[in-house]
Order: sequence, then structure tokens, then C-alpha cells
Amino acid sequence: FYENKLYGVFYKFQPIDLIRKYFGEKIGLYFAWLGLYTEFLIPSSVVGIFVFLYGCITIESDIPSKEMCDQRNAFTMCPLCDKFCDYWNLSSACATARASHLFDNPATVFFSIFMALWATMFLEQWKRLQMRLSYFWDLTGLEEEEDEKDKLTWNDRIPGYAANCGLILFMIMLTFSAVFGVIVYRITTAAALSFSTNETTRSNVRVTVTATAVIINLVVILILDEIYGAVAKWLTEIEVPKTEKAFEERLILKAFLLKFVNSYAPIFYVAFFKGRFVGRPGHYVYVFDGYRMEECAPGGCLMELCIQLSIIMLGKQLIQNNLFEIGIPYLKKLFRKLKDGRTEPKEMNTNQSKDPQQWDLDYSLEPFTGLTPEYMEMIIQFGFVTLFVASFPLAPLFALLNNIIEVRLDAKKFVTELRRPDTVRAKDIGIWYNILSGIGKLSVIINAFVIAVTSDFIPRLMYQYAYSQNGTMHGFINHTLSYFNVSHLKAGTQPENSPFAQDVLFCRFKDYREPPWSPNQYEFSKQYWAVLSARLAFVILFQNLVMFLSVLVDWMIPDIPKDISEQIKKEKSVLVDFFLKEEHEKLKLIESFITRDKHKQKSGTKDQKSRSASFCQFDRSQKGSVASFSSQHTEV
Amino acid sequence: FYENKLYGVFYKFQPIDLIRKYFGEKIGLYFAWLGLYTEFLIPSSVVGIFVFLYGCITIESDIPSKEMCDQRNAFTMCPLCDKFCDYWNLSSACATARASHLFDNPATVFFSIFMALWATMFLEQWKRLQMRLSYFWDLTGLEEEEDEKDKLTWNDRIPGYAANCGLILFMIMLTFSAVFGVIVYRITTAAALSFSTNETTRSNVRVTVTATAVIINLVVILILDEIYGAVAKWLTEIEVPKTEKAFEERLILKAFLLKFVNSYAPIFYVAFFKGRFVGRPGHYVYVFDGYRMEECAPGGCLMELCIQLSIIMLGKQLIQNNLFEIGIPYLKKLFRKLKDGRTEPKEMNTNQSKDPQQWDLDYSLEPFTGLTPEYMEMIIQFGFVTLFVASFPLAPLFALLNNIIEVRLDAKKFVTELRRPDTVRAKDIGIWYNILSGIGKLSVIINAFVIAVTSDFIPRLMYQYAYSQNGTMHGFINHTLSYFNVSHLKAGTQPENSPFAQDVLFCRFKDYREPPWSPNQYEFSKQYWAVLSARLAFVILFQNLVMFLSVLVDWMIPDIPKDISEQIKKEKSVLVDFFLKEEHEKLKLIESFITRDKHKQKSGTKDQKSRSASFCQFDRSQKGSVASFSSQHTEV
Repeated sequence: FYENKLYGVFYKFQPIDLIRKYFGEKIGLYFAWLGLYTEFLIPSSVVGIFVFLYGCITIESDIPSKEMCDQRNAFTMCPLCDKFCDYWNLSSACATARASHLFDNPATVFFSIFMALWATMFLEQWKRLQMRLSYFWDLTGLEEEEDEKDKLTWNDRIPGYAANCGLILFMIMLTFSAVFGVIVYRITTAAALSFSTNETTRSNVRVTVTATAVIINLVVILILDEIYGAVAKWLTEIEVPKTEKAFEERLILKAFLLKFVNSYAPIFYVAFFKGRFVGRPGHYVYVFDGYRMEECAPGGCLMELCIQLSIIMLGKQLIQNNLFEIGIPYLKKLFRKLKDGRTEPKEMNTNQSKDPQQWDLDYSLEPFTGLTPEYMEMIIQFGFVTLFVASFPLAPLFALLNNIIEVRLDAKKFVTELRRPDTVRAKDIGIWYNILSGIGKLSVIINAFVIAVTSDFIPRLMYQYAYSQNGTMHGFINHTLSYFNVSHLKAGTQPENSPFAQDVLFCRFKDYREPPWSPNQYEFSKQYWAVLSARLAFVILFQNLVMFLSVLVDWMIPDIPKDISEQIKKEKSVLVDFFLKEEHEKLKLIESFITRDKHKQKSGTKDQKSRSASFCQFDRSQKGSVASFSSQHTEV
Repeated sequence: FYENKLYGVFYKFQPIDLIRKYFGEKIGLYFAWLGLYTEFLIPSSVVGIFVFLYGCITIESDIPSKEMCDQRNAFTMCPLCDKFCDYWNLSSACATARASHLFDNPATVFFSIFMALWATMFLEQWKRLQMRLSYFWDLTGLEEEEDEKDKLTWNDRIPGYAANCGLILFMIMLTFSAVFGVIVYRITTAAALSFSTNETTRSNVRVTVTATAVIINLVVILILDEIYGAVAKWLTEIEVPKTEKAFEERLILKAFLLKFVNSYAPIFYVAFFKGRFVGRPGHYVYVFDGYRMEECAPGGCLMELCIQLSIIMLGKQLIQNNLFEIGIPYLKKLFRKLKDGRTEPKEMNTNQSKDPQQWDLDYSLEPFTGLTPEYMEMIIQFGFVTLFVASFPLAPLFALLNNIIEVRLDAKKFVTELRRPDTVRAKDIGIWYNILSGIGKLSVIINAFVIAVTSDFIPRLMYQYAYSQNGTMHGFINHTLSYFNVSHLKAGTQPENSPFAQDVLFCRFKDYREPPWSPNQYEFSKQYWAVLSARLAFVILFQNLVMFLSVLVDWMIPDIPKDISEQIKKEKSVLVDFFLKEEHEKLKLIESFITRDKHKQKSGTKDQKSRSASFCQFDRSQKGSVASFSSQHTEV
């Protein structure tokens, strides 16, 4: 069993039965679940890699990014900030456009349908595995904890609930303001760096700002995660739940809600809100005096979403899972050793002479704090793998790499770093299953929106089949850019020190708006509404198609594996036969006693006869009850 | 029990337990289900009546219908057919517009959300009632039928499956062509009646055509329903299912698919397709040479959908359920009596002298043909109540009225008209539950589309909040009508004999298209796309909101009633105690035998001792197995 701690055995099956024997069913189920999840990540990683490769291969034949990079297409873009930014040429954003294509291609649509079905399939298979384990581990009859009898009145609970709702709302607000803080940081830093006289600083504004902002986001998430864990625990204690199980469930729900919002708020912002409230040239939206709302890079927000996702996901995994899980316990141990060494130096000396006993060694280990953090980490990762998979097909691969380490790391931690936990029986993974299935359902609608709204998939389709002159993608970039008459720029916002300000009559910006020469200048154009209709129609189509397929998958895979259900049936009939046979034998045995008695004593007392008769009668009634009992409970 | 046949007892509870004792569990479950469904129809009928009353009350304050009826608003509409139809004034469609408002108001939106939650609640409550019944009727242990051992190979099955798919497709095509036939009938009759010289005929064209067409639809549905029932049965026989249960399930699935398509195809056509492929003045879509595609009435298609729904629903219920269910068996009985009377006149005479025996009377009854038609009828009705409830809030009321009769009619039929059916045990309503839950899910998306696409709800909202000058609905009718320059009418399609053809320069038609003076004349206008976006956004919002609420309802109502689950737990612990106590008593009894033997015989034989020892050992092992057995099966 100690082999477990070696990373080299990652390709071997986990010894689930041994884990169960040593740690109990609850931890056994966790490792079984983790194992199945990791196994399921393999096919999705492979498909994800293929989708990514498809993007790489087709990058050369992608007409829109070619058009963007073509130096001859001189699209003069409107300045990105007031006063200090100059007009710029679209071809300078060539690299971003090419990178966007890696994730913004038709294969991604296929991949997100695949991942939605993958999630359904995973949940179904887990149900089956759980059924199998609970059969082999004899858990089917496990009783739920009894509810307490004396209930708290509604009045006792109101303060707790009120504090709960209030604090959870406050925490969520805190998360949102952290996200907003980072946005403000991005806007102000970008503006500040634009003033810079240093040429290199100015040309790398976007990269510098994005990178630092994401890192700030990550740090905020890591800090708030720790705070939220403590707050959720405190809030659940206030509620005074009736049983241990109820306590755990409520704690998990609260902690999950807070950590989910915390982890995903910045990602949601980039996916669905960033760049949508910018306004338009001449009529920008200002956050503070003089600071414009931030826009997405010219390649679309999808690229930024992808960067955000990958850095937060990888950072969280590396820092939280590996550094925190190994580093902090190690530091704690070290600290305790040092303290022990300082306060009890004499005892230590006497102990050192003989070999330390096992309990001495075990005492120096960290106490076990429950499975909740382990599950939480994996569920949040499951969210990264399913929720935004349309924007980052490599997520399953990174999750897989992390988990291969994680399985062994957890095992090593449980075996060598922690005191042996009390064994707890459990027949399923409890509320985590509901959370997983909720994430699975949420992922369908979120992926539909990512593809429809964040990516350029729909506008491209629309252009190719509705607006293009010759059915090709040529001219797509030109079609997505609106015209702006530079003389309509508000006074004081025109670019200063622009070398070619004199030559520019119109600048372009990415939006579907009426040109300056239209009677309704700068209003949303007909194309805008038509593309929006197509986007929304895609969401409806995608969501209903995927939901239908999921129901189909759910319906086709039976919840109880066939061999197990047959085994259970067989056992039941064997048991009934056994009972009946035994009754029969007992009856015969008693009769033999009685006849022998009669034989020996010739005249039996009345008392004796009636006693044996009542015994036999009792026996018969019992036989009936066994039959009815077994027939009543064959349906598990 | 014979009370049942009296309609006067409709307000009393059904004697479900007696039904079960007399007819068996399967029919008992049917009546229990029907009872619960009918009970659930009561609140939805009440809410439906309120929604209808809301429409009636607000009809006077509805500005769009007032504007349509106002004689001073002279909207000259484009002719409804080529050549023979004249320009007409919109105010002549006043009555339809007012009637539309009855069903096309904001209360309907609320009602369809209510009905979606109602369906979820109904299914949850049925699960609980089923659990309760199967507990009290001792059905939890009912074994599924064993599968047959020798399987047919894939090759044996291919012809059957192929015939199946082919014929089902053919049948569905048949339904569609029937629907199309009725459309053609409507178009040609409308055109023919327009030629008529009779003034009254011409003014009532729409009413005449709609009424006759719906009745034809109804007759076609009734005929095809009978054919499809027979075809489904034959198709299932071809498939050679393994067990009786598999046969029934496949038959039901096929029959349901065919009858569902048959009943709803014309309704789907009116809801989502009618009036959408008309083209525009000057560029109409023609079905055949000279026959234009049909349009909806100026009040919108919702009114027509409502008429279609109510006539088909009421007609189906009255004719199929009551006439067929009572009339046909009665006629059959009469026919058989007559035949019997003719062929066996002598025997009858001899029998008439003495009182006829019960078996003679029973022989004259119809044989029982299964519950499938009863369920089918109710499930199709459930579809009418949920699928298009947005367009016809009174559907639950009509269903309720039908069912109050139906429950007693079925009871009377089962008791007095049919031979007593073989009792069959069943622990649930089987595949019908899945079909019900499927209809519930489908109803969410269909209602979303009815509200968004068929009704005028979204255009009104859009007008009020986006286009209206002063935030009121004034001018809405004008906004929804596009202009058409009559000189653009193709030669030969202009109205002949029009008294005011000389004065008309522009006629109006209901659509969002660019006016004749725009550069892109008659193209879809920006409003069209904006309204379309709003409609689709509404569908997404509605669907996800309702699905979320349904999941919440599902989650909040536990599947097993609390008293039942506690009862089951208690029984199990009593049973285990009983086993253990009895074992103990038996052990004591045997010991007393042995000690008595010893006492009396002083020296017992070795043989005897070992026998009793082995008995005790056996006993102990049994005790263990009872405990493990009961612990393994407490989870029902």
C-alpha cells in the first residue's frame, strides 16, 4: 500500500479495496471517484488536443486572420485612448488574430457538444460505479442518521438565517468589488503607461497590463478562497444544523457557492461583459473622469478569456493544490518540531536515546480535517473543464496532468502526512453529486453563450452565407468594422502629436453601426440585429440539442450495472430458499425430539405437547414473514 | 362499489383500495393516477379561469385593439387574394383583434410559467402517491419479469426494424400530407368563395373556411388515430419482443409517437408555420399556379391557434372518449345480441324460461383490451393542457370537465360493460411516466415559442419601451404595418372592379419591411431584426427560468413521503428484533429439551450432543445472515 506514494505508479490502478479497508468507505469512495474522473479526463484530453491541433493546422488557411495580417489592407483604427493614443493600423494586431484562431474555429463547437455529453456520461458511469462499490462493500443497507427529535423553533433560527444571507451577499459583493478593482487597475495602468515616453513600454501596454492584472486576480482569488472557507464554516455553526451530515451538507453548499463565485467571477466578466459597454468613438463610456471602459483586443475577447482561464486554472492548481497541500503542512510540521524542541528539550533528549515509538511519530503528524477541501478543489476544476471548455480546449489536458499527480499526492498525504482519520461509512458522495450535475447543466448554457456571443463563430457564418458577395470569407474584416468620421471626435479627445492626423478622414472600429453618411449615423445597423438574432437562435438550438442528447445518454445507460442487478436478484432467491430449507430442517429436528420423547416416556405430559405445538405454529408464521419480507425488499 | 357508475358521486373520493382488490394493482394504479391528475386539474382550471377573466376585463383598456377598431384610422390594407379581392379597411377586422386580446395578454405569460411548474409538481406528487400505494399494496418487492434466454440474432431482427422505421416514417408523412391537404383545401376554398357574387358568402369567407377546415382536420385525426393504433400493434408484433412487458412498452412508444404527431401536427402548423411563408405584396409565395400561401387573420395567428386547439381538443374528447367509448361498445353488444338472436333462436327460448345465470350475462360483455387506450387518451389530453397552454388558458378547465365524467365512465365501463379483466400486478405506471415527463419538458420550449413567436407579446413590449414616442401603446398598429406602393403590384394581380382603386397609392400589410421610398425597398427592416432578437432572447430567458424553477421544485419535494420512509425504517428494525428474539427463544427451547434429556437419561449419547451443538451453530450463523440480510435491504 505504501507504494502509493511513488509517483512512478501513476499508470497503475488504485488499490481501492485496500484504501477502503484502511481508511473506511468515505475516503474509499473519494479515491474511487477521483480515479474515475481522472480516467474520464483521458479521452477528453485526447479530443481536446486534436481540436487544438485542428486550430494549428488550419491557421494558415484562415482568411480573416490572413486579411488582418495583410499589410496592404490599411485599416486605420480609431485611437484606443483619448488624447495620448494615436490612430493605429489593424495589421499590428496580426499576432493576436492568429492566436485567436487556435481556439475560435468550428472544431470548438463540436468539442463543447462533446464535453457536455462527456459530463453526462461521467455522471452516469459514476452512478454505476457507486452502485457496484456499495454492493461489494455491503453499503446498500446503510441507515441514514436519525433526525433529532426536539426541533429548534423558527424564531430560534431566524437570526442565524438572516446573518447567513446577509454575509453571503456581502461576500459575493466583496468578490465583485475585487473584480471591479482589477478592472480599474487595468484601465488606469493602461492609461498611465500610455503617457510613458518610453517606446517599448508603450508598445507592450496590453501585454503588461493583462499579465499583471491576471496575476492580481489570481492572488485575490487565493486569498479570498481561504477567507471564504473560514466564513462558510462559521456561518454553518451559527445555523446549528441537527446532525453531522446536515452540517457537512450546509457547509459544502455555502463554501461551494462562495468559492465558485470567487473563482469564476473574473472569467465571467471577460467572457460576457468585457468590451460590451465601451460605447463608440465620439461617445465613449467613462468609468471615471477621463478613463474609458476597457475594450477587448482586436482578435476578440475569446483570446483574453483563454489567457484568463489558463492562468487562473494553472495557477490555482499549482499554488493551491500542490504548494499549499504539501508546503503548508510541511511548514506546520517544521514549526511544531521547532517549538517542541524549544519547550521540551530535556524530554526529547531522553526519548532520543531509544527508538521513538509509532504513536510518538504519529503524534507529530497533522490532524485530518475532512474530505471537503479535496472534493472542493476537484469540483472547481471540473467547472474549469466543462463550463468554459469552448474557449480553452486544452483544459481537460491540464486537469489530467494535475490529477495524475493529485491522486498520488493525496494518497501520500493521507498515508504519511496526516494522522490516520477515523473511518466513516458512507454510501455515496452525497451533495457533491448534485453539485456536479448542476455544473454539468450550467455548462450547456454557458458554452452556448461563449460560442454565440464571445467567439466570432456566428458572425463568420453569417458573413459567409448571407453577406459575402462570392460565398467566401474574403472581406469579412472589412464587414465587421464600422466607419467613424474623425471630425466627430469630441474636443480634447483627438490624438495629440499624431504624425498622420492630417490624412485621416475616417477611422474604423469593431462594431456593426451605421456609417457617418447614413441618416441615423452611428446607430446599430441592421447587420447588428441580424447577427444578434443569429447568435440567440444558435443558443436556443445548441442548448436544446445538447440537452436532448444528454437525456438520451442518461436514458440509454442503466443506473445499475446488469451483472450487479442480476447478482442481487440471485442472492435474494438463494436467501429465501435457504430460510425455507432451514425452517424445514428445524421442524424435522423438533419432531424427532418429540417422537423420541414419546418413544421413551410413552405417556407425555399435556404441557409438553402444547408447547411443541405452539413452537411449530410460531415457526410457520415466521416462514410466512420471511417470504413476505424478502419479497418486499428485492427492489433495491 | 357499484355506486361508481353514478355520475352524481363525482365529488367523492374513488375507492382505490376496492378497485385494486377487484381488478388488481395495474388497474388500481390507473384509477389512482387518473384521480390525482383530475385533482391537479382543479387549481389549474381556477387559475386558467382567472387568466381568461383578466383578458375579458382588460379588453376595454387595450389600446391596440381600440386603435384597430377605430373607424377614423383608415388603414387601407393590401388585398388578401389576387385579382378578385379588393383593398380593405383594417377596422373591419376589429372583432378578431378584440377576441385575440382575450388570450394574448401578459397574464398568459404568467400562466404558462405556472403550468410548467404545475406539470413538475404533478409528476412529483405522483411519484409520492405511487410510493405510498406500492407500500400499502405490498408492491415494493415485485420482481421484474425475467428476460428470455435465447436471443434472436441481429440478422433476425433487421427486417422487423427496417419495416418499423419505414412504416413509421411513412405514417408520419401521411399525417403531414393530410395537414397539407387541409391547407390546400383552405387556400382553394377561400379563393373559390372569393369569386362568389353573393355578398354574404364573400364577407364570411374566413369564418366558413376556418370552421370547415378544422372539422376536416378533426375527422382526419379521428380516422388516422384508429388506423395508427392498428398499425402500431402490427409493427410491434413484427419486432417479436421478448416479454409481455417489452411488447407493451414498444407498442405504447410507437402508438404514442404516431398519435402525438397526428393530434398535434395541424396545431404546430398554425402555431409556428402559418403565415410565415406568405412573401410580401408584389412578391407573394404561390403554392400552385395562382394560389397564394395562406395568411393569419389580422389579429395574429394566436386566435386561430386557439380555435384550432379548442375544437380539436373538445371534438376529440367528445367524440373519441365519450361517443366511441360508450357508443361503439353499445353498438357491438347490440349487434352481437341480434346475431345471437338470429342464429340461436331455439336455445334462447329455452333459456329465457329460467333466469339467466351470471356467466351467461358476463359472456355477453365485451372483452377487456388493456389499459393502453385509456392512458393514451389521457396523455394526449395532458399534452393539450400543457403544450399550448399559452394560447388557450381554458384548456385545463375543459380537461377537468371531461375527466370528472371520464373517471366514472371508465369505472362504469370496467364494472358493467366489460368482462372482468385478468388481474395484473404492476408497481408503477411504467413507460407512461417517462412520456409524461417528456411532455412536461417539451411544453417549456413550446410555450416559450408560442409566447415569443406566435403572440404579439414581444412586439408590444418592444414598441412600448423602445419605439413609442411617449411610452404608451398608441400608434402600435401603425408601427406594425409596412407600406406598399400599389404600382409595384405585378400585372394581372391588381384588384379588378375596385371602387376606390384610383385613390389608393399605398396599401399596408402586417410585417416589418422597408417602405417603398427606402433604397432597399421591401427588405426586412431594422425593426424586424430587433424584434426577432427580442423574441429569441425571451425564449432563452423563459426556458432557463422555468427549467431552473422546475429543478428547484423537483429538489424540494422528496420522492418518498416522510411518513412512509419512517414506517419502512421502523418495520425493518422491528423485523430484525423479531428475528433475533425468536432465535433466542428457539435456542432456549432446544437447551431445555437437552437438559431434560440429560436429567431423565443421566447419560446422553455422544451422537445426540453433537447434533444439538451443530444445530446451535447453524442457528448462530442464521442469526448473522438475518442481520446482514436486513441491513443490506433497508434501502428501498
